[in-house]
Amino acid sequence: MEQGGKAALGWAARDASGHLSPHSFSRREQRDGDVTIKVLFCGICHTDLHIIKNEWGNAMYPIVPGHEVVGVVEDVGLGVTKFKAGDTVGVGYFVDSCRTCESCSTGHENYCPDVVLTSNGVDRDGATTQGGFCDVVVVDQDYVVRVPESLPLDGAAPLLCAGVTVYSPMMQYGLNAPGKRLGVVGLGGLGHMAVKFGKAFGMTVTVISSSPGKREEAVERLGADAFLVSRDPEQMKAAAGTMDGIIDTVSAWHPLAPLLDLLKPMGQMVLVGVPSKPLELPAFAVCPSGKRLAGNGVGSVSDCQAMLNFAGEHGITADIEVVGMDSVNTAIERLERNDVRYRFVVDVAGSLGAAA
Amino acid sequence: MEQGGKAALGWAARDASGHLSPHSFSRREQRDGDVTIKVLFCGICHTDLHIIKNEWGNAMYPIVPGHEVVGVVEDVGLGVTKFKAGDTVGVGYFVDSCRTCESCSTGHENYCPDVVLTSNGVDRDGATTQGGFCDVVVVDQDYVVRVPESLPLDGAAPLLCAGVTVYSPMMQYGLNAPGKRLGVVGLGGLGHMAVKFGKAFGMTVTVISSSPGKREEAVERLGADAFLVSRDPEQMKAAAGTMDGIIDTVSAWHPLAPLLDLLKPMGQMVLVGVPSKPLELPAFAVCPSGKRLAGNGVGSVSDCQAMLNFAGEHGITADIEVVGMDSVNTAIERLERNDVRYRFVVDVAGSLGAAA
Repeated sequence: MEQGGKAALGWAARDASGHLSPHSFSRREQRDGDVTIKVLFCGICHTDLHIIKNEWGNAMYPIVPGHEVVGVVEDVGLGVTKFKAGDTVGVGYFVDSCRTCESCSTGHENYCPDVVLTSNGVDRDGATTQGGFCDVVVVDQDYVVRVPESLPLDGAAPLLCAGVTVYSPMMQYGLNAPGKRLGVVGLGGLGHMAVKFGKAFGMTVTVISSSPGKREEAVERLGADAFLVSRDPEQMKAAAGTMDGIIDTVSAWHPLAPLLDLLKPMGQMVLVGVPSKPLELPAFAVCPSGKRLAGNGVGSVSDCQAMLNFAGEHGITADIEVVGMDSVNTAIERLERNDVRYRFVVDVAGSLGAAA
Repeated sequence: MEQGGKAALGWAARDASGHLSPHSFSRREQRDGDVTIKVLFCGICHTDLHIIKNEWGNAMYPIVPGHEVVGVVEDVGLGVTKFKAGDTVGVGYFVDSCRTCESCSTGHENYCPDVVLTSNGVDRDGATTQGGFCDVVVVDQDYVVRVPESLPLDGAAPLLCAGVTVYSPMMQYGLNAPGKRLGVVGLGGLGHMAVKFGKAFGMTVTVISSSPGKREEAVERLGADAFLVSRDPEQMKAAAGTMDGIIDTVSAWHPLAPLLDLLKPMGQMVLVGVPSKPLELPAFAVCPSGKRLAGNGVGSVSDCQAMLNFAGEHGITADIEVVGMDSVNTAIERLERNDVRYRFVVDVAGSLGAAA
């Protein structure tokens, strides 16, 4: 335990099995700019799964996962001006960045090459970071956001990663205007958030999925205007050239050309899922029509705050299943099978004591 | 010959051999908004080669190729206000569009689904269009541009396609600012124009090529600031994350990931070459860094006029080899072997009579 640090109790993976079990460690001592946050809820993201199983080959065990953190401020350092004890706050995918590079100085610190990830990251002092499956986190105020009072805290947790990952590029690429036509590929944790934001922006939203069975869910429950089965060439052909933008959330390999065909000339596709095998991009699908394709990785802190404010105004949260910490391993197994609509959230404060 | 049409003499391909020979036909009668142009020079573009050899499967023989036309106005229709007899003008890749679709109404008629190509296109009256390897063309004034007096007319001809194809996306994606870093992949007809525009914009320009032998040409003669051999992993690694944008002009299959690695976070790559085999796009190369990729097809009429004005102010023309019409078949053969620095231009007015 770090001398002078704050005692913390989390659940950590010790090896590539990814199995989580109780882990006592210490958070850094609260510094002048730091906020100490009692964790209430923490979402489970696919990225957590990749990291704890060392699927990206960069695991630094023990790993306390979790980067969709909602909690309440317990204490603040001397220099903290933005938050006070009792505030409801959130922490997302990263907890610091270099603050000097071109990305940081233009408000895109999510693209800082030295960004400090919330879990399994390397902090600026060299320490390994530990995430939100834990009773307490200590984070610099500049990387903490305020959660609107109107939102239920459990359903708000996934906004911190899944929410901002789709909201940020929608804002950046003008896919937030009433009357514009948005395609959302894949109806999972990210996709269902894109549908909700698209509808709140006043857009016409079409869900595109390989699973015909998701039509009812997409249209009846989430309010999408239309549904396309991506494997049905006739449906896809009928919708060709109709969309201003597409948010592609699918993380399995899939052909891009049929999706690019759905775009109007100069339409914008955004990739937020990250298949491990390279995608195929026929130049003919983008050149004669001036179409565009962009990758996106979460969003900046200010994007995240703007997204939370917007979500607060429009009552947008993720559709979730709340689990106790003692069920977290089962939840992760189910997540691996995509057996969740649409996000697991751990009730950290309500279950950690009992589970440990 | 169309009744009342204007007699025209061009050189046409009759079959997939692509061999050109003299061809007498008639242009449409000059309409109210039309400009009748005596062709002086016409560039030879790779697209001409694809079309006359029916490599895209859409050849409508006989085909008079040529869409980099510079000429002088001979006559104008009653409603023509933009040009008068004696004006030096140009015609590029297309000669009409629907004028009502979203692309047309936002000034991007190059992306109109019903754009009328200058050669081997279908005109709005159903006629097959014939290009600039011909003594005369008749074109609606809205699709004609003015060629600045300061430019030599032969070197200006390739600006009408090669020039605007790189200039337009450079403007569109902010790759025109002093101090920004531009990569140009491939040093051919398009690439050498991108280098010239990049330097005129005040950018730091790096040429990236698989041919180490092009270094001297790129740096000494065209004024590029640096040169990278794309097959040298050490050179490429040393330049990683340094470029604001890349114009990729290569029309042969090539890996995208090493080029995307050269971009800064949120950097923009533009594809203007169109390899027939799909390119490989690893999502990891764009998502965590928010990088972007866009296709581009020529540019709008107003882009083309702006490009010509800019070229006039900065004395920018293509590096060309001028040939007579009687040498056009040899020139096309050499173009097929990339044996030209960097563009053939046919001296139409100076050679057509003799050659026919």
